[in-house]
Amino acid sequence: MTSALWTVTEETFNPKAQHHSETIFTSGNGYLESRGAFEEGYPGERRTTFLHGVFDDIPISFTELVNAPDWLELHLFLNGEFFRMDRGEILHYRRTLDLRTGRVNRTVRWRSPQGRITRLEFERFASLADEHVMVLRVHITPEDYSGTLEVRAGWNGDVDNLNYKHWEWLAQEATPEMCALHVRTQATKIELGAASRLSLASGVLAEKTAWDVHNHPTQVVKTTLEQGKTLTVEKTAVYFTSRDVKNPYQAAQEKLLGLPVPAWDALWEPHARAWEEDWQACDVEIEGDDEAQIAVRFSLFQLLAAAPRHDERVSIGAKTLSGYGYRGHVFWDTEIFMLPFFTYTRPQIARNLLSYRYHNLEGARKKARDGGYQGAQFPWESAATGEEVTPTWVPHYADRTKVIRIWTGDIEIHISSMVCFGIWQYWKATGDEPFLLERGAQIFFEVARFWASRAEWNETTGKYEFNDVIGPDEYHDHVDNNAFTNAFARWTLEKAVWLMDYLRQNHPQAAEAYTKNLGLTDEELHRWQEVARRIDYAVDPQTGLVEQFKGYFQRRDVNLQAMEPRTESVQVIFGIEGTNETQVLKQPDVLMLAYLLPELFDKKSLQVNYDYYTPRTDHTYGSSLGPSIQAIMACRVGKQEDAYEHFIRAARADLRDVRGNAGDGIHGASAGGVWQAVVFGFGGLQFHNGKWTVTPHLPHHWKRLVFRFTYRGKSYVIDLPNKGPFSSEEA
Amino acid sequence: MTSALWTVTEETFNPKAQHHSETIFTSGNGYLESRGAFEEGYPGERRTTFLHGVFDDIPISFTELVNAPDWLELHLFLNGEFFRMDRGEILHYRRTLDLRTGRVNRTVRWRSPQGRITRLEFERFASLADEHVMVLRVHITPEDYSGTLEVRAGWNGDVDNLNYKHWEWLAQEATPEMCALHVRTQATKIELGAASRLSLASGVLAEKTAWDVHNHPTQVVKTTLEQGKTLTVEKTAVYFTSRDVKNPYQAAQEKLLGLPVPAWDALWEPHARAWEEDWQACDVEIEGDDEAQIAVRFSLFQLLAAAPRHDERVSIGAKTLSGYGYRGHVFWDTEIFMLPFFTYTRPQIARNLLSYRYHNLEGARKKARDGGYQGAQFPWESAATGEEVTPTWVPHYADRTKVIRIWTGDIEIHISSMVCFGIWQYWKATGDEPFLLERGAQIFFEVARFWASRAEWNETTGKYEFNDVIGPDEYHDHVDNNAFTNAFARWTLEKAVWLMDYLRQNHPQAAEAYTKNLGLTDEELHRWQEVARRIDYAVDPQTGLVEQFKGYFQRRDVNLQAMEPRTESVQVIFGIEGTNETQVLKQPDVLMLAYLLPELFDKKSLQVNYDYYTPRTDHTYGSSLGPSIQAIMACRVGKQEDAYEHFIRAARADLRDVRGNAGDGIHGASAGGVWQAVVFGFGGLQFHNGKWTVTPHLPHHWKRLVFRFTYRGKSYVIDLPNKGPFSSEEA
Repeated sequence: MTSALWTVTEETFNPKAQHHSETIFTSGNGYLESRGAFEEGYPGERRTTFLHGVFDDIPISFTELVNAPDWLELHLFLNGEFFRMDRGEILHYRRTLDLRTGRVNRTVRWRSPQGRITRLEFERFASLADEHVMVLRVHITPEDYSGTLEVRAGWNGDVDNLNYKHWEWLAQEATPEMCALHVRTQATKIELGAASRLSLASGVLAEKTAWDVHNHPTQVVKTTLEQGKTLTVEKTAVYFTSRDVKNPYQAAQEKLLGLPVPAWDALWEPHARAWEEDWQACDVEIEGDDEAQIAVRFSLFQLLAAAPRHDERVSIGAKTLSGYGYRGHVFWDTEIFMLPFFTYTRPQIARNLLSYRYHNLEGARKKARDGGYQGAQFPWESAATGEEVTPTWVPHYADRTKVIRIWTGDIEIHISSMVCFGIWQYWKATGDEPFLLERGAQIFFEVARFWASRAEWNETTGKYEFNDVIGPDEYHDHVDNNAFTNAFARWTLEKAVWLMDYLRQNHPQAAEAYTKNLGLTDEELHRWQEVARRIDYAVDPQTGLVEQFKGYFQRRDVNLQAMEPRTESVQVIFGIEGTNETQVLKQPDVLMLAYLLPELFDKKSLQVNYDYYTPRTDHTYGSSLGPSIQAIMACRVGKQEDAYEHFIRAARADLRDVRGNAGDGIHGASAGGVWQAVVFGFGGLQFHNGKWTVTPHLPHHWKRLVFRFTYRGKSYVIDLPNKGPFSSEEA
Repeated sequence: MTSALWTVTEETFNPKAQHHSETIFTSGNGYLESRGAFEEGYPGERRTTFLHGVFDDIPISFTELVNAPDWLELHLFLNGEFFRMDRGEILHYRRTLDLRTGRVNRTVRWRSPQGRITRLEFERFASLADEHVMVLRVHITPEDYSGTLEVRAGWNGDVDNLNYKHWEWLAQEATPEMCALHVRTQATKIELGAASRLSLASGVLAEKTAWDVHNHPTQVVKTTLEQGKTLTVEKTAVYFTSRDVKNPYQAAQEKLLGLPVPAWDALWEPHARAWEEDWQACDVEIEGDDEAQIAVRFSLFQLLAAAPRHDERVSIGAKTLSGYGYRGHVFWDTEIFMLPFFTYTRPQIARNLLSYRYHNLEGARKKARDGGYQGAQFPWESAATGEEVTPTWVPHYADRTKVIRIWTGDIEIHISSMVCFGIWQYWKATGDEPFLLERGAQIFFEVARFWASRAEWNETTGKYEFNDVIGPDEYHDHVDNNAFTNAFARWTLEKAVWLMDYLRQNHPQAAEAYTKNLGLTDEELHRWQEVARRIDYAVDPQTGLVEQFKGYFQRRDVNLQAMEPRTESVQVIFGIEGTNETQVLKQPDVLMLAYLLPELFDKKSLQVNYDYYTPRTDHTYGSSLGPSIQAIMACRVGKQEDAYEHFIRAARADLRDVRGNAGDGIHGASAGGVWQAVVFGFGGLQFHNGKWTVTPHLPHHWKRLVFRFTYRGKSYVIDLPNKGPFSSEEA
């Protein structure tokens, strides 16, 4: 294994791609993530540190992750000159993200406005072994001068979220030895305590002072630089919030005082070891395709860096903790796209993510109630409480006098079953019976109750219908009987009935408790069965073609190939209404169903649906959720080359910014889908009746694929050499 | 004249009324205004300093005045304890606003958490003689201890507008002698340079340092306090923006360096003299009614403090520069309610305010064009460019998932004629022929053109109509042929035709230039006459009753008296739609027309309309624009007692917060209306054919009324002793 295949590298800094770079160089430890902003700041930056669960109210989107006072801030004055990349001249620049450990390094050779040349190497990490602790340092080498060095660092409580401020000041401390800040979110009243310390290598003479400026306590260290000699400055930082402890301000200071000075070396080893453990369970090795190798590891790194290790009341948002996109809200992206990776490699994390839904059941009950339904309906967008936080009206992107109605929070209802699917998959993979008994079954029963109350009986057809919905394909809204939604309503009702039966046989006490606490009568269970049996789900009996929703085939057919090459989504080209009238899909909808519930499709039917829907899907600019699933389905119908095209599109989503929006944060679902495409698609891993099978469909140019998974408590390493054929070029 | 009648006083500080108090103790100099926030800060405060013309983009309301880095910030550490009113104990408190000079004083006797007692007196003013300069000082007397004093003050670039940040950092300077900050608004790129200096009385030994914290440069002065001795600390501050000079950062520092140390005494005298000059031209004296006396002076002070002395590209917003209400936007409140005070006392300021509209004609042309009309249509809400900035959709006040459509920006169209009316009144009062020739006529012609293009011909009635509008009474929207709107469309068209005739006779060159530059043909002038002649304007031939709009009399009649006492507006009680269906008015609409165009109403008609509309008006919680006009009309129909009731309601709008929203800022229109009620109502001042007459209608308990005005270059003092009768109580 070469280190290059573990490294994301940037050789030049392009201010125009600044936000994209910040996303790529995001790093974190499952408690927090920080975007790859520069320690000294840069004009136009979107520097953020998001901590899991720290949400506060905002207009329009209701709630958002709050940008924390910034642990990265460090200002250097080299012989009196403020080091910033937008001043002077950059003679050399290189930034790397080490995927093995999440360490971000930046080397800059800088000629100051006054002409002095300095070599600077910054490095940082947030400890995976002790999630409240972060450390950064900079190695400073004056090449052609000796002079003074002044370092300033502390905490700024006036940080904002895209200009919007969430924090109010409570207290602060600034001494020559440390800085601390105590702030609180305005509406949700979450307190944050932050503490930090600047230090130099022992033996270096320095003058230390403190600037106790209101809401911006700052430590200042002054020393001298000697030409050609490297001096190292370290900043150690600690966060605690009132989500963690009662007195986060005190906890942060105590934790800081207990750390060695300097702290880097002592913190590094357990941190690196923790990452090593993760990678031993998760790594995927690809030989013969360096781009894919790095992209896959980058995807897994971003998932791991965002994954809550010690907190079961948070989940991973659609953009992880890495950007403002979707304001930190959690979608089905988690359960369907990201969760399988954790379920099959780090099941404890999967359990945390699913427990988040359990703890937020009250919000889901409220949503069902507000809509006039029973049971629990999970919100399309979820944050701290499980209440629906999808924005309803947003400003028009082009005309500030207009607003656009967002319907997903009202009618994209398959999400509730997706939570159940995640539970089912987790339980099947881990056999975690306590989780099923205490939490999983509760969710299943309450969601089944929702579906039964949402079903509409059609007297004419003798079917139960789910009308006025949005399926996974969001190019079509307000549709009736979306096949995906209806099939999953049926699946959930059936599984809920089965589960009660299973509990009665194997855990009679639990069955009794649920019966009693939920008032679950046999009559209700019977009704669930009845609704499930009669749900409207249409398959062409001749061909096996599934109509995505009622009337889909009557919509206008569009030859997407004739529109290539495009640089915009079909929705932008045709407009929202215009696209709705065509058969063009934002993402595979029926094929997604075939992926998740393969038992509904025989081989012929799978092929027929693949052939029909694939050319009608906006693969390039539709949903970023599509390509990885499309890749898997291509493998299943034996189209490896198509599969690779879709896979690499997903793999490039962030690294190459193929959709132009990576600046808003990591595409978490795409990252999770990449893992599934490799393991379930190319690797062909499948589970059936408690057994697994591997049926590889490797891309021709891959020489070898190695992946790891855990199943029912046992860990496996699958090593798949590709038997070829290889062309001479690839040899 | 006793000083008490020039002073607004607060004897206790009530944190629950904090925002109201901040509004009341707003002071300024026509370049800026600062709310009455405390130097040391207070939780929940809305501390703002707004500078005229410094707008930046925001969501929903498009643009807003930007809260500037705060010149008031001053932190005192008394023997190490941070002085704040929410800590320790307040033994005595008193705050005053001196209306003669705008000086704000605050005396606090404070027992610190550790039990030490200190007497503090703060005072501040923004110079009216040199509008870029502000100064504050604090006199500190330790009563029962000797100890250390540490003073910290500088500039914080991270200020916000209700949490929203507008400024980006450009540069800063912090030395033991001064602090400076250079920032720029994010979207509009307006630069602000700020500089400040802390100083003690000469001879006091002090240690001065600077804390150069990023975006928060701070000066620190340390000295000792001696028991029983008073020490004075002064902060002198300077603002310049790129609206004033090319390099505001440099200008601010240079100006500061040129000021004496300490500066208070040297700055005070010219400042006080400038105010003295204003008051000599403007003051209103009322004997026998101290509340009215203070309220009137308070109103005039707030108008004068907000009035641009040296800038003709800004105007006074509905809430002056004193709060976030309406985001600093300018309405017809200026031309109809505030302008007359300036026109008749400080005509140069009136000229500035009207010139603002002239300079923003391009925005008005754009608005007409965007609506499919010709000429110039002034925006309902106006800011830096004259483009329409009324929000179109705002979040629902009670349900965050809903939005409300605001229609005023689309269809409340009388504003364009209100600008013309202000010009006409100004020209008639001042005889400022150059203004008419260069600017006023231009506006008249372009607005007339708008009206002619907006008029709809009704074949059936043979009338020109203005349909789908909102008149001054905003409880009724989407109405047809609002009498006020139609009468003013006619007035404007007629006056435009008359003006062209006047120019041709008296200023043929100007007439020719307009004809050429605007392409104004005789045919078009003829059409204006035709439209004016046939505009639908209905008066009952029998009674003289004017129907407010077509179909108004068919709306449901409501007995408002039966609903008293209310604590909410009728619109809140009945809902927006419900109120629309009644005859209840937010503010007098037909009576406003009778006030502005008295020639349309004979004595009988005036009485009939007064009697009809008065009981149908929501005087208490409707528009704050109503009561002053209602007071004047009550005088005109001889109902002095009613007049006083309406007048005092207007006079209390801010001082007593009768509508509960004074925290959002001064009701500028009400303040201007108060002056009109006194001078045009009780004083009975009227102008006709170049002559003025005074027909007093003094409230019975007033012993004397003195007011001043300027007409055609001459100044008059009207001294009206009330001949009684007085009751024994009042004697």
